[in-house]
Amino acid sequence: MSSSGRVMIVGLGPGARETMTPQACEAIRQAEIVIGYSGYFAWIEGLTAGKECLALPLAQETERARLALEHAGAGRSVCVISSGDAGVYGMASLVFELAAAGDKACLPEIMVVPGISAVNACAALLGAPLAHDFAVVSLSDLLTPWEKIERRLMAAAEADFVIALFNPQSQRRDWQFHRAQEIIAGSRSAETPVGIVTNAYRPGQSVRITTVGEMARAPVDMLTTVIVGNSQTREFAGAMVTPRGYLAAAGNGECR
Amino acid sequence: MSSSGRVMIVGLGPGARETMTPQACEAIRQAEIVIGYSGYFAWIEGLTAGKECLALPLAQETERARLALEHAGAGRSVCVISSGDAGVYGMASLVFELAAAGDKACLPEIMVVPGISAVNACAALLGAPLAHDFAVVSLSDLLTPWEKIERRLMAAAEADFVIALFNPQSQRRDWQFHRAQEIIAGSRSAETPVGIVTNAYRPGQSVRITTVGEMARAPVDMLTTVIVGNSQTREFAGAMVTPRGYLAAAGNGECR
Repeated sequence: MSSSGRVMIVGLGPGARETMTPQACEAIRQAEIVIGYSGYFAWIEGLTAGKECLALPLAQETERARLALEHAGAGRSVCVISSGDAGVYGMASLVFELAAAGDKACLPEIMVVPGISAVNACAALLGAPLAHDFAVVSLSDLLTPWEKIERRLMAAAEADFVIALFNPQSQRRDWQFHRAQEIIAGSRSAETPVGIVTNAYRPGQSVRITTVGEMARAPVDMLTTVIVGNSQTREFAGAMVTPRGYLAAAGNGECR
Repeated sequence: MSSSGRVMIVGLGPGARETMTPQACEAIRQAEIVIGYSGYFAWIEGLTAGKECLALPLAQETERARLALEHAGAGRSVCVISSGDAGVYGMASLVFELAAAGDKACLPEIMVVPGISAVNACAALLGAPLAHDFAVVSLSDLLTPWEKIERRLMAAAEADFVIALFNPQSQRRDWQFHRAQEIIAGSRSAETPVGIVTNAYRPGQSVRITTVGEMARAPVDMLTTVIVGNSQTREFAGAMVTPRGYLAAAGNGECR
């Protein structure tokens, strides 16, 4: 059984309108109500005319999800906007979780529209660091025990995954990024390239390539994504590149 | 020093035009030459009028990269198209690698335009399985030793990562997916939800949710992405959802 309302959870991509898919724009156009962090509404100017816009402050994720389900339960068509991909540390799972905790008898339809995730956006700006197996780890221990995060960092580092770090540092969390560097340096050469991107596809964009040995000195914040190369990753002409192995397989190993 | 030519490596997204970004379309429009697997040109109909289109068969990745650099080296503007995100097991790293192996004196500009990766597209169709730390592993051992793939699977399974499997099976590789299941089952409950998506956002799309215990029976191929949940992932109303922890943190654990 379901109400006639629905919630579309939409990934806007990293920021620039040119990285937002037509599917995401259309989902916003078709909604009656748009809910999201207030900072994101500037990204979708021109798409929200005549709609009810509920712009909430940062850190009110649960309230956004609750409002979305409440309005959808009343039969309305709701769009929840999220930066990057709504499914990757985004709003999508929270809406499903809250729906699961609520009244199953008036469950609205819930759909997710994918977006360009921060990790893909940052990788493109760096070159091609994600061309082989990679692991994505958030360093935020607000909702996850730090021991679990350490265990994942260690496992990913030892198994030679390319490692993408989300939420490396915030005003409240100032030591996790340094500790992550120590763990990674335990099983990866100090010369391994590390890409650090802040504000990808937004004003103030910064893209730099450093190394595992030096990465802890780089300024990082909640809008930074860090990509640590694997044992094969190289820097070349300003780009960070993880080989897939084609040239080595062809007997031409000169660029590895 | 660089030639005046350039190569744009463009991720088209999973397939449907509505999942292709304006940035990707614009990169194609601005190119003089478009190079790619022949099957992808139908996706970009209307964008290639008046351009030289080099449509190559599958498995000629190195030749596509070589042609792109050759034309860019001669001062032309080239676009290499790739499905999903061009940086994730795509064409991007190969173009950089080949450029690194070639003549540094006439290096063209090389840029990457990100796209919706298969893993994000499939996750959106399943619900929200990627809402916490995840690892992406390709099961293709054509260019990577199987021992290395096993090591990564084991590490990701033991550290409780959500695990996305690319290239689970092909006509030549028929046992790797079963072996991956054995490894994952070694440290994850048989009831853990597993999402299996084939032809995401393409004709013939198939989305199913099974379990770690049953996953090896599912038909998979090169157009399938498999997403294995972590210890917290649940199935709810037909969706596969990995909680972020908000509700547990609020003392409301009923949906975990």
